[in-house]
Amino acid sequence: MTLLLPELELINTISRPSPTKIVLLVIDGLGGLPHPQTGKTELETANTPNLNRLAAKAICGLTDPVSSGITPGSAPAHLALFGYNPLCFTIGRGVLEALGVDFDLECEDMAARGNFGTIDGAGLVTDRRAGRISTEKCAELCQLLDGWTIDNVEIFVSPVKEHRFIAVFRGEGLDPNISDSDPQQLGVAPTSITALTPQAGRTAKIVAQFVAKAQTTLAEHHPANVILLRGFSHLPQFPTMDEVYKLKPAAIVSYPMYRGLAKLVGMDVLQTGTSIEDEIAALKQEYANYDYFFLHVKGADAAGEDGDFDRKVKVIEGVDRALPSLMDVKPDVLVITGDHSTPALLKAHSWHPVPVLLHSKWCRPDKVCQFSESACSSGGLGRLPAIQIMLLAMANALKLTKFGA
Amino acid sequence: MTLLLPELELINTISRPSPTKIVLLVIDGLGGLPHPQTGKTELETANTPNLNRLAAKAICGLTDPVSSGITPGSAPAHLALFGYNPLCFTIGRGVLEALGVDFDLECEDMAARGNFGTIDGAGLVTDRRAGRISTEKCAELCQLLDGWTIDNVEIFVSPVKEHRFIAVFRGEGLDPNISDSDPQQLGVAPTSITALTPQAGRTAKIVAQFVAKAQTTLAEHHPANVILLRGFSHLPQFPTMDEVYKLKPAAIVSYPMYRGLAKLVGMDVLQTGTSIEDEIAALKQEYANYDYFFLHVKGADAAGEDGDFDRKVKVIEGVDRALPSLMDVKPDVLVITGDHSTPALLKAHSWHPVPVLLHSKWCRPDKVCQFSESACSSGGLGRLPAIQIMLLAMANALKLTKFGA
Repeated sequence: MTLLLPELELINTISRPSPTKIVLLVIDGLGGLPHPQTGKTELETANTPNLNRLAAKAICGLTDPVSSGITPGSAPAHLALFGYNPLCFTIGRGVLEALGVDFDLECEDMAARGNFGTIDGAGLVTDRRAGRISTEKCAELCQLLDGWTIDNVEIFVSPVKEHRFIAVFRGEGLDPNISDSDPQQLGVAPTSITALTPQAGRTAKIVAQFVAKAQTTLAEHHPANVILLRGFSHLPQFPTMDEVYKLKPAAIVSYPMYRGLAKLVGMDVLQTGTSIEDEIAALKQEYANYDYFFLHVKGADAAGEDGDFDRKVKVIEGVDRALPSLMDVKPDVLVITGDHSTPALLKAHSWHPVPVLLHSKWCRPDKVCQFSESACSSGGLGRLPAIQIMLLAMANALKLTKFGA
Repeated sequence: MTLLLPELELINTISRPSPTKIVLLVIDGLGGLPHPQTGKTELETANTPNLNRLAAKAICGLTDPVSSGITPGSAPAHLALFGYNPLCFTIGRGVLEALGVDFDLECEDMAARGNFGTIDGAGLVTDRRAGRISTEKCAELCQLLDGWTIDNVEIFVSPVKEHRFIAVFRGEGLDPNISDSDPQQLGVAPTSITALTPQAGRTAKIVAQFVAKAQTTLAEHHPANVILLRGFSHLPQFPTMDEVYKLKPAAIVSYPMYRGLAKLVGMDVLQTGTSIEDEIAALKQEYANYDYFFLHVKGADAAGEDGDFDRKVKVIEGVDRALPSLMDVKPDVLVITGDHSTPALLKAHSWHPVPVLLHSKWCRPDKVCQFSESACSSGGLGRLPAIQIMLLAMANALKLTKFGA
């Protein structure tokens, strides 16, 4: 089987620095499904004169974030947009959660996702979520466990949401090849933490001690009387966008996880407020200092997840209103797309392909004059894997030399 | 990303000889970009009644030569059209240059690309191109170096253009795993030729002697007083089209590099003049003797590289006028496409997808009735990797049996 997708090594050999600038605007969860009463998706319902005008001058298409039929999480979906194959560049569950609460992970840290859970008198798990305790209660309990040191390893425990928290282990020589303690089922005892490789023996012992000590500490805190850990992982070492694409990239995003993702691929994370207007202001202020900008609008995904069709429509209309201000910087290449679809009707991420618009002097415009799922499906980009967007942006910015003579 | 593209081994198991004939007509650099004043590309500007009539009976689409966003050289772009994955079947720089000047490489020959350059009194490179000496001067200097023998290895030196030449080493046991002597920068000495593997020791010594002797010979020929070699390579051994496709293929092309490429995949290279009419005459004369024909029109690419929009339009119109004569042979399958785009506006090869038209009795025609970038983007073939064209041609020629029972 032949994957015609160039590897990052190949891209590295053909990429070159240039003064042109690329702006990627991600409307999180952009794609949708038609409202049963109107037959129109959120994007098709929204009044978007500016996006439509731009679509008419641009080349459009539909992307599959990971693969046809695959519903992606936000992390793989964004990695694809940055040109990193999400099937190769994976991020451990613990690290992802840590990025999500803006925990400043250091290079050798080992992170785990944790649940507060409930065990009965026999030590068997009766609830993996401790009755979904409140986030406030979770924060209280985390304070009881935070800051311990075991065998020279510092342990940080931070709340995430409801019963969820992260545990970060900081010290030399930690090896995440250890088993989870979360049994992922009820009626059994939490799994013993054991080393999956000979090198991970010490790490397993330290984590097992932590789990045991936590259980003692939590004994009187029913229903949250046990911790269940999983997804032990190190911060992955990805090649940076500078190394691969010879870009100086900046992220203008307010949500923690996206900031963390951006850092993982070597972006500078700029100061910004939470609105699209704030992000565009930051873009204008820093426009001279970088040649790749990643802007991110979270609201569309959040509205989709809430099943709020109308609110998602309004978020998209807000982006449309802000577009002329963004265009003030006259980006050499502007890509507007989503990381994945989040149809309000599904109240969740979905596998549906995502509209994409690429505008540049060299884009070979198509006949699409509306930025929508149905119009983009006949666009000049056709239907393409999201990972190819980055290459197209680079090509349109004239930042790629010829492959072969 | 997952392209379910079969390997050559698979194709070999399902291909079968048959009396049907395939003609591939490559209009080099066919794809373009819209003229700012008309909004029409070169192909859309050209008056092409015959191509349009054929498009109406054919199935059309847009191909990506290597991958979305990648600008290919002519060699990888053609290999893709012959059904060879250009990321797997690569050709060394030295060999490519030798093919480009029609040097008749033998199986064990090792070829290198050379530059005449300038070094100063301290032996440091001050100009990697010797002030771009004339091609005539280059030919003169090549004669001084041509025909030497070192340790039973014959050395051939032939001019290419301006400061560029090829050096071909002919003898037993040559190993191209040696370092370049071209330092690719100024202010440093030429790099010593060293073996990159233990087996290449003798080869490195021979080439180093050649470089030293050349420098002595050129001492009084400032600015061309040094040679800089790179891209040492053997003629690659590709499976032939006979082996893979069970075809008897012929190339009707006048440009050296394309003749060389055609030989690499096992085509017979037929005698032809340089015009499309000459090529069609050769096609008619040899039609009974082969079942696959590759015809090549260079002019469109050359005009594009020169930024000459109108001349590219005229070249395309010339092909259109010749088309009825080509159709006289009634090919079972006719594919008309380009190897890549060369928009006059960019004056260079580009990444833009390339219109393709496939005509056969079994092609399932689409609604496209104009052979153009924009019309082909809604064609029945969709947007596909160029490497799939060969399979489609084979299928339409009923030369592929069923896969699986």
